[in-house]
Amino acid sequence: MILSGQLCVAQTAEPVNDWKPCPSNQAGKQYPQYNSEGRVKFRIVAPEAKSVGCTFRDSSEFKKGEDGAWYGHTRPLDEGFHYYAIKIDGAEVPDPNSRYYFGSSRWGSAVEIPATDADFYALKNVPHGQLREVHYFSKSSDKLRRIYVYTPPDYDKSTRKRYPVLYLQHGGGENETGWGSQGHAGLIMDNLIAEGKAKPFIIVMENGGVSGPRPTNAAPVGAGPGGRGGFNFSAFEKVVTEDLIPYIDANFRTIAKQPQRAMAGLSMGGMQTRSIAPAHLDKFSHIGVFSGGSIAVTNITDLAAFKRR
Amino acid sequence: MILSGQLCVAQTAEPVNDWKPCPSNQAGKQYPQYNSEGRVKFRIVAPEAKSVGCTFRDSSEFKKGEDGAWYGHTRPLDEGFHYYAIKIDGAEVPDPNSRYYFGSSRWGSAVEIPATDADFYALKNVPHGQLREVHYFSKSSDKLRRIYVYTPPDYDKSTRKRYPVLYLQHGGGENETGWGSQGHAGLIMDNLIAEGKAKPFIIVMENGGVSGPRPTNAAPVGAGPGGRGGFNFSAFEKVVTEDLIPYIDANFRTIAKQPQRAMAGLSMGGMQTRSIAPAHLDKFSHIGVFSGGSIAVTNITDLAAFKRR
Repeated sequence: MILSGQLCVAQTAEPVNDWKPCPSNQAGKQYPQYNSEGRVKFRIVAPEAKSVGCTFRDSSEFKKGEDGAWYGHTRPLDEGFHYYAIKIDGAEVPDPNSRYYFGSSRWGSAVEIPATDADFYALKNVPHGQLREVHYFSKSSDKLRRIYVYTPPDYDKSTRKRYPVLYLQHGGGENETGWGSQGHAGLIMDNLIAEGKAKPFIIVMENGGVSGPRPTNAAPVGAGPGGRGGFNFSAFEKVVTEDLIPYIDANFRTIAKQPQRAMAGLSMGGMQTRSIAPAHLDKFSHIGVFSGGSIAVTNITDLAAFKRR
Repeated sequence: MILSGQLCVAQTAEPVNDWKPCPSNQAGKQYPQYNSEGRVKFRIVAPEAKSVGCTFRDSSEFKKGEDGAWYGHTRPLDEGFHYYAIKIDGAEVPDPNSRYYFGSSRWGSAVEIPATDADFYALKNVPHGQLREVHYFSKSSDKLRRIYVYTPPDYDKSTRKRYPVLYLQHGGGENETGWGSQGHAGLIMDNLIAEGKAKPFIIVMENGGVSGPRPTNAAPVGAGPGGRGGFNFSAFEKVVTEDLIPYIDANFRTIAKQPQRAMAGLSMGGMQTRSIAPAHLDKFSHIGVFSGGSIAVTNITDLAAFKRR
């Protein structure tokens, strides 16, 4: 009885009251907020709604506060970045207070709970590189494709210096905007370079097949390579090796040699890296697989070459 | 009686049934749709809602369709781009089917009804320039500021060619992303250059003071120059003339001379252009004011110089 009473108290205890606005909020918005437990609290104005909630499992019941708005909070979450939606009388909609990101296969809300070591991706007054939106024509997919390219600070200062290249792929349900937006890839690089912890290199971020190039006035992209639901690794392999690498080497000041070319990716992007890079050891010397499985002997076409490299 | 009956029929007539998905939709989403009258039709899944609507005035009542989703449509709208929100039981939220844009002082939904001459901003297989996200430090506002810079096709091919620059400002409630995203500025330039209708030039898009630099992990920006509600033209004048132009001339291959430097803007950006450019005729030779009022003699500090130029 005593034990069960304690458990009950623990479950219904009020969250720690040290809430701060999330850095992923729209400018000037006080909600969503996060606390030191990693909970996220929402505030939703829905005066005539019967019920309000969010898509995080095990969240508190949402209740109307004294100001008439609905409030509710999540269980403690891992620090970092989470996609979600708000529920209003059965409708799943973006939270009007958050900014919007491409994840979970849609543009929608997400919340960032700053990481303990968030300083490494903070915006600082150091020399900054550029994040470039680039359209190029991919012959193998017969399509104009949109990519983002990070060029390091001073890329435009020298006209002779050439750089290594990392091809960096997003996770499933994300797209070519992910690493540069919610992934803070440019800020991470800027800070590492400023601290002398990384040599400058170019990062190329393509769309691994979840959605195709989707400039603001193009027709919706269908299924198939580069379309929604297109987990077509072999089509993407062609895009990377036949179209993308030659385009980047022709249009950016790269060191266009295998020892200076890397591929890495998160989750689905890791799986793609694991599938593509070991099969093209003439092109890639460095391989990074983040939550994308491990490279088995069976993934290596030419084991002798893999060992040499 | 007959006349009033006809009017009644006209008012309740069904919209023309030639609906097509809007180009501003998320990939694969069939709604919102537009028709040849310029109406926009929405489909919202909100099973337990009592009422659904949208923020366009004079829209039809939203009703549940056979599939259980809510449908409603707008009055005929002007072709082009419109910001809106969906209403669900009193909550104003983004439409989960649209992509999101910064306008009306928030990230939220918008719908594009393709213009009759939409071809001029279509994505085509022509040489494409780049849209670059750039952070620079503005001494006068003591702030890292985010700008977007369009560089024309082949900017990186030659390392010697230098280009004129247009400083192009967004309207009120929009920000530095507007011209490059919903404004299709890059695609318009790419097409004009490909057709030989424009000489290549650089376009620089700053934040005219509605919201400050807001990288994904920065703290919310407060009021004041560059903050929300900051219609501080004189602070912005300092940013443009003391910080931005020197930065651009030092970091891009510009023709850093008054005859090759222009300023233009829409609405609030037009008012800012009208306020800033005529006061700095040593810096600007070309001035474009789009819906930002006209330049009166009282706007000209040095009328003799204005006439000469």
